[in-house]
Amino acid sequence: MHPFTNIRSQSVSALGEEKLIATIRRWLGRASPPAPFGIGDDCAVVPAGRAAQLITVDPVIYGEHVDDTVSPHAAGGKLLKRNLSDIAAMGGRPRAAVVALAIDARVKLAWLEQFYRGLAAVSRRYGVPIVGGDIAHHRGGIVATLTLVGESSPARVVTRTGARLGDWIFVTGALGNSLRSGHHWKFRPRLAEVQWLARQRAVRAMIDVSDGLAKDLRTLAPRGAVAALDAAALPLRAGADVRIAITEGEDYELVFALAARTDRDAFVPAWRKKFPRTRLSCIGRFVRPDALPAGALNLADYRGFEHLRKGIPETRRSRRTQKKNA
Amino acid sequence: MHPFTNIRSQSVSALGEEKLIATIRRWLGRASPPAPFGIGDDCAVVPAGRAAQLITVDPVIYGEHVDDTVSPHAAGGKLLKRNLSDIAAMGGRPRAAVVALAIDARVKLAWLEQFYRGLAAVSRRYGVPIVGGDIAHHRGGIVATLTLVGESSPARVVTRTGARLGDWIFVTGALGNSLRSGHHWKFRPRLAEVQWLARQRAVRAMIDVSDGLAKDLRTLAPRGAVAALDAAALPLRAGADVRIAITEGEDYELVFALAARTDRDAFVPAWRKKFPRTRLSCIGRFVRPDALPAGALNLADYRGFEHLRKGIPETRRSRRTQKKNA
Repeated sequence: MHPFTNIRSQSVSALGEEKLIATIRRWLGRASPPAPFGIGDDCAVVPAGRAAQLITVDPVIYGEHVDDTVSPHAAGGKLLKRNLSDIAAMGGRPRAAVVALAIDARVKLAWLEQFYRGLAAVSRRYGVPIVGGDIAHHRGGIVATLTLVGESSPARVVTRTGARLGDWIFVTGALGNSLRSGHHWKFRPRLAEVQWLARQRAVRAMIDVSDGLAKDLRTLAPRGAVAALDAAALPLRAGADVRIAITEGEDYELVFALAARTDRDAFVPAWRKKFPRTRLSCIGRFVRPDALPAGALNLADYRGFEHLRKGIPETRRSRRTQKKNA
Repeated sequence: MHPFTNIRSQSVSALGEEKLIATIRRWLGRASPPAPFGIGDDCAVVPAGRAAQLITVDPVIYGEHVDDTVSPHAAGGKLLKRNLSDIAAMGGRPRAAVVALAIDARVKLAWLEQFYRGLAAVSRRYGVPIVGGDIAHHRGGIVATLTLVGESSPARVVTRTGARLGDWIFVTGALGNSLRSGHHWKFRPRLAEVQWLARQRAVRAMIDVSDGLAKDLRTLAPRGAVAALDAAALPLRAGADVRIAITEGEDYELVFALAARTDRDAFVPAWRKKFPRTRLSCIGRFVRPDALPAGALNLADYRGFEHLRKGIPETRRSRRTQKKNA
């Protein structure tokens, strides 16, 4: 059977990413256990001897996640950092990575050298050895896939589930305009911050913002609740407005739910003392849909980045170009 | 910098796979520890609480490892099985896998469903859960990358190094004609056999044959020794001759070095009793280059499968077609 079709209803584009993942889980059946031990969170958790072991995988694809405006050095660094951000989102520490490279034989050695040097630089900075990998030919393309294994915090695994009605919503750093500003490859995964957060029992659930707050925050919302966001409290990156900040993605910041009963007047200063250079913002709370305050941002009005949504989907590159031209 | 070039000397094809890997290790510097803890063996070994943890990654790329003559169900199964074969080659047991899928949005749902169902079937057969993954858009291509983590045998990690001068060379199953016969997707990873082999101290080093015996056996040879093969002892798959058997690859059989002092008249019957349905052949031994017996196959006259060797390299598909037409 030939794998391609121009008939939309027969293609993955008819579903979009979220439904496709749900469909794949159905196809996998018992081969796919529920999160946190299987599909459904930032990392897969595999019970191990001492601490739970974390595994995450994310690619960098030429023409999708990077293009000719991004140096190969930055692209190589991004490949590891976007996986580090997933380990951070589970409250974990990275241990080791493997890289599978699928490339056209016409790729320049100089390009590939800078790619691996950029990867090595991030590897050293965060103490994560590249312990293996694979190289295969791939006519016309460059797909670098990194799998990162880590271990959970001694305290616990911080998953996406656990938020409750009334919990406060916090976000680290700033949001929006990641592509044009270069944040999408310059960012610093929140590995240090998360070691502290994992020890705070009041932090109930966490995710990293990669597909846009509008999409990723829905994953964090407890059943029967929605996020009531205060637009004025959103930490905007230079060049971003509210719509950009919650829809563009590639922010690689942490969003977490803080138990409603928490004394924020103690929590926030404690954070600031520990991490004076990392912004922390309380941007709203989880409420019943019928209790959404007047003036609150309604996330239902916005969409994050949906992979494979269109027949010939927008790439990250074309999305940025579209925004430039908008 | 644009990643592609038509100038051969500036491209990865100027090196070929083996030199490219060595070059990448140099680029990575301290980020790449030596095997078995890093690059250089079938799996990366990460020390863990109880047993050493094994990680391996291998893709299935449409147009390279599978084509329209292979059903998507078989392709999905092959994706996991070729990784299982790597875990087997280290004497390990598989624990969990993650899959990163890079696909064009025009891929048929029916194709993808069969792909994942095939993956799920192998996953169940070998008790290896698919615990996570990623999906990303990739214009015009299908690259499925599976990372498999496992743990070493309680006995030990069986690496590629350790063979000594005089050691016997054994191979499981049969070799050659894997592509035309369909063995390359029908094969059974030698996971059961390897649990027994890992407990035999006389088994000194092991590798799985994926790029052809001529290439993979060189990795197993001790310093200052070459493999002296007895052509008549090579277990040929139907349709294969000696050249095909040692150069084509995709055999996914185990080759191991057995200590010279071993009583083969006890070892081989013990194997046959344990695995009556898995052929085991003694195909030669490691000797000094100047002691190569008359009539022995000289592997230096043959080459296995070299990835990225040519400017526009042969794909697995075109290789098979060429053989058909030869």
